[in-house]
Amino acid sequence: MLKMITEGSLLMGKYVIGLDYGTLSARALLVQADTGRAEAAAEFAYPHGVITQDLPEGWSLQHPQDYLDALFSLIPQIMAGIHPEDVIGLGLDCTACTAFPVDAQGVPLCFDPKWQHEPNAYAKLWKHHAAQQRADRITQIAMERQEPWLGSYGGKVSGEWGLTKLWELLDEAPALYQAMHTWIEAGDWLVWQLTGQESRNLCAASFKHFYRQNIGYPTLDFYGAVDERMKNLIADKYTAPVIPAGKSAGRLTENMAKRLGLPAGISISAACVDAHAAVPAAGITEPGEMLAIIGTSTCVMTLAQMAHPVPGICGTALDAILPGYYACEAGQSCVGDLLGWFCDHCVPADYQARAKEKGQTIHQYLTSLAEGMRPGESGLLALDWWNGNRSILVDFDLSGLLLGMTLQTKPEEIYRALIEATAFGLRVIVEHFRRHGVPVEKLFATGGISRKNAMAMQLYADVLDLPVRIVEAEQGAALGSAIYAAAAAGYYETMQEAVRHMAAPVSRIYTPDPEHVKAYDALYGEYKRLHDFFAKDGVMKRLKNLKQKTPV
Amino acid sequence: MLKMITEGSLLMGKYVIGLDYGTLSARALLVQADTGRAEAAAEFAYPHGVITQDLPEGWSLQHPQDYLDALFSLIPQIMAGIHPEDVIGLGLDCTACTAFPVDAQGVPLCFDPKWQHEPNAYAKLWKHHAAQQRADRITQIAMERQEPWLGSYGGKVSGEWGLTKLWELLDEAPALYQAMHTWIEAGDWLVWQLTGQESRNLCAASFKHFYRQNIGYPTLDFYGAVDERMKNLIADKYTAPVIPAGKSAGRLTENMAKRLGLPAGISISAACVDAHAAVPAAGITEPGEMLAIIGTSTCVMTLAQMAHPVPGICGTALDAILPGYYACEAGQSCVGDLLGWFCDHCVPADYQARAKEKGQTIHQYLTSLAEGMRPGESGLLALDWWNGNRSILVDFDLSGLLLGMTLQTKPEEIYRALIEATAFGLRVIVEHFRRHGVPVEKLFATGGISRKNAMAMQLYADVLDLPVRIVEAEQGAALGSAIYAAAAAGYYETMQEAVRHMAAPVSRIYTPDPEHVKAYDALYGEYKRLHDFFAKDGVMKRLKNLKQKTPV
Repeated sequence: MLKMITEGSLLMGKYVIGLDYGTLSARALLVQADTGRAEAAAEFAYPHGVITQDLPEGWSLQHPQDYLDALFSLIPQIMAGIHPEDVIGLGLDCTACTAFPVDAQGVPLCFDPKWQHEPNAYAKLWKHHAAQQRADRITQIAMERQEPWLGSYGGKVSGEWGLTKLWELLDEAPALYQAMHTWIEAGDWLVWQLTGQESRNLCAASFKHFYRQNIGYPTLDFYGAVDERMKNLIADKYTAPVIPAGKSAGRLTENMAKRLGLPAGISISAACVDAHAAVPAAGITEPGEMLAIIGTSTCVMTLAQMAHPVPGICGTALDAILPGYYACEAGQSCVGDLLGWFCDHCVPADYQARAKEKGQTIHQYLTSLAEGMRPGESGLLALDWWNGNRSILVDFDLSGLLLGMTLQTKPEEIYRALIEATAFGLRVIVEHFRRHGVPVEKLFATGGISRKNAMAMQLYADVLDLPVRIVEAEQGAALGSAIYAAAAAGYYETMQEAVRHMAAPVSRIYTPDPEHVKAYDALYGEYKRLHDFFAKDGVMKRLKNLKQKTPV
Repeated sequence: MLKMITEGSLLMGKYVIGLDYGTLSARALLVQADTGRAEAAAEFAYPHGVITQDLPEGWSLQHPQDYLDALFSLIPQIMAGIHPEDVIGLGLDCTACTAFPVDAQGVPLCFDPKWQHEPNAYAKLWKHHAAQQRADRITQIAMERQEPWLGSYGGKVSGEWGLTKLWELLDEAPALYQAMHTWIEAGDWLVWQLTGQESRNLCAASFKHFYRQNIGYPTLDFYGAVDERMKNLIADKYTAPVIPAGKSAGRLTENMAKRLGLPAGISISAACVDAHAAVPAAGITEPGEMLAIIGTSTCVMTLAQMAHPVPGICGTALDAILPGYYACEAGQSCVGDLLGWFCDHCVPADYQARAKEKGQTIHQYLTSLAEGMRPGESGLLALDWWNGNRSILVDFDLSGLLLGMTLQTKPEEIYRALIEATAFGLRVIVEHFRRHGVPVEKLFATGGISRKNAMAMQLYADVLDLPVRIVEAEQGAALGSAIYAAAAAGYYETMQEAVRHMAAPVSRIYTPDPEHVKAYDALYGEYKRLHDFFAKDGVMKRLKNLKQKTPV
């Protein structure tokens, strides 16, 4: 899909390229370095998509070949009609932790016929999560050893992070672990392909691999305590330099330049986590400003002046998004995914028929039925844990809950209750940040749902009692990568300056309705009580255990 | 729908007629008095059905004209080819409390154009429930006054019972209350139409109107304490004699005999509650034997030698089902209704298409997908309170809960979890009876789900750790009414003797699987914990309050 955004306009000035590797597709954006204005955009859907078939629950894989195919498809598309010499840099972001084993030349081991039937040889996607017990065990070891980095990760290790996924690989395929040169984030692997040099990006290393700026990875002893066989992980396999976003990771190789139709030697900036790239794109440069990317899942990021240890968040990392500030990240494990599940599994035929008649998606149709409801009207309340809870509980053994159904309950009421639950989940995070000294004063939102569902965004404003500023960036992460690229190429002196020139505008503001704020306060109180009850109660964990028992 | 059950057989001996007035239709059965064998059956769907449109939540009305239309349609159908003089008696049962106001001639006030737009003038169906606060207030008054009858009703008055519904009528339409001669159960009204004499049946009077055999209704003072305007309710409006099931309430009038094509003067037995009529039909004559009628809702009845006060059950009443025993009743507010709600509101188009392809109902299709699952496999757990909880909590402000969902959860898993929840709900009742001295040793099941869903019945056997004996009676309640009619007509000397000759056989026994019993013990433990938690927690009540608030 190629889209010339300003067809026929006078193309002038210098360009940077931003690439955004998402869950189902990759997007490329050609951006004016002066203004941040997009000149061309293209999207490439991964041929292999997300691989889950015949895999255990929790598994989600990708095929690294898809990432290369995306690169070779996208760049020529956005470069059509552009003089290559006007391109001064390229940046990319990628989902993380999305990582896989490679050999010393950077060739993914899953490309080797020897490993092609070994699931651990493929890219474990961000949402792939190893057994919760494995993550809990790492947390316990870190606590017992009083590891100083644990506080930076909310005090709890996630099943989605690097070490948990890698430990799973080691246990399930020890020969693969031996055979690999390193286990690398997809974003870093792409930068390696472009520059010919292995490096790590500070953003993913900080948020997914326990790396801390100016300090480094945890000690060898810690890895040895987790598993004796990993004692030398850092010394043997994690040796590449770690580079902050907005800094150059190297220059485009001759060979790659030729294949892509770009000038050799242009700056390739360090990769960063896809969500994090959206922060500069939203124009955020100050503490107190929070960005929520509301899509299949929700990621929230904010900046802080000091390192506040906030229990149960994903992480706090110096320089990881903007130099000089601590970036704080938290998240919700499913938002759009939850609504998608509902539309796929729980909407009756007559609703689907009526949506079709009206030329609406089922989301649009349900929204049209639900948008007139007042807060509390359905009597329903949900806990949005269909995919576990990332923040602030960091527990993937939690599961969904829906309460208040009667024989009169309608699908659109459940749909709205699920959206409300995701808003309540975000409020838990916002209040938690504030309680631990991280200010949240201004909320920016981007991502698919922020653009597509006005009802949801009004509801978020009402639940959070905060205006929700929608950032109009079709490809926010790709724009962020382009901004990082411009800074890394030296086109701007600082990242802050690059952001001020290139960030996307706020296109719409949803203002809280005071009556709804009051009504949602009461509902949020109920949500929070159930949240706290089921966080501790253990019934969800016990049900998951019963589920996993082998057949009798 | 006329069905000649033994077409061409030699018709001989005497017959009794059993009529069963249900929620959506009435059924008639012509039965051999010697054997209980059905000779003919017919069904009549009420033209007005269940009236809920434009009515507040909780309201469910019927039109009494439907009851008469059913009578005049059904009797001629089942009498085709039968000599009228071979019919020796007629009995009927009806849902209860299903009652409406009539004038001194027995004409329903909703037939009067003056009242035709007054919802309180129509029959309030069994499942119509007045505000829970109203029922709670009556309970409170009865407790404060230490009313001796309260213990016979599980210590808690239901929003579905007579006084609660009538008090609602008085408050909402005081002129209607003044205008009526009495407020009468539909079953008693039909007996009045047939015999020309007003009477009350002991079964409904006991279980729905606080009447106790050998004692009578509560005192005038009690009714005055509830509402001064009802002080003389019993003296003014509840004056008709109360007659036990299996006794004659009068003889068929000349006029009715002519219209129905039956001999004038045959015995019309006292009506009884529809569910209760199924007890003799199932062959139950001893304490320790329990009947569960598993249909839209579930009603369980058992016999006891002594009056055991069991908190939270619907009632205990001497002679109300079989003379000489205390009949104990408990119930679940929705079972088939819950599965129907799910099929109507939560099953996606592709499932509906595949069921159609296979020529299956959606229930059959979901069952085919769910029947191979082992206990606990789905990780789901539900509280079956979509229509409140009748026993043992007696609280219609409770609502449904579903827990354990993931993004992989499938409709058939939810369907099975809902069936499991109803089985757990029944186990709560069985354990509660036993704990309070009412033995439950043998379980008989009848009703639509018992015949139609083998998966559900096996699951009930596994959850309850009791063999489930299915009673093969297409029209169990109608057969029971025919048995009462035979006893009332004097064809048998005792009800026990009538039951021994006429009851339906057990057609199938589901035997518990010891491995499943063990697995369900664990799941039941989780159910019971959530049951007890949400019974007390109040969140469902608070959500219902928020729901009922007027729009802001």
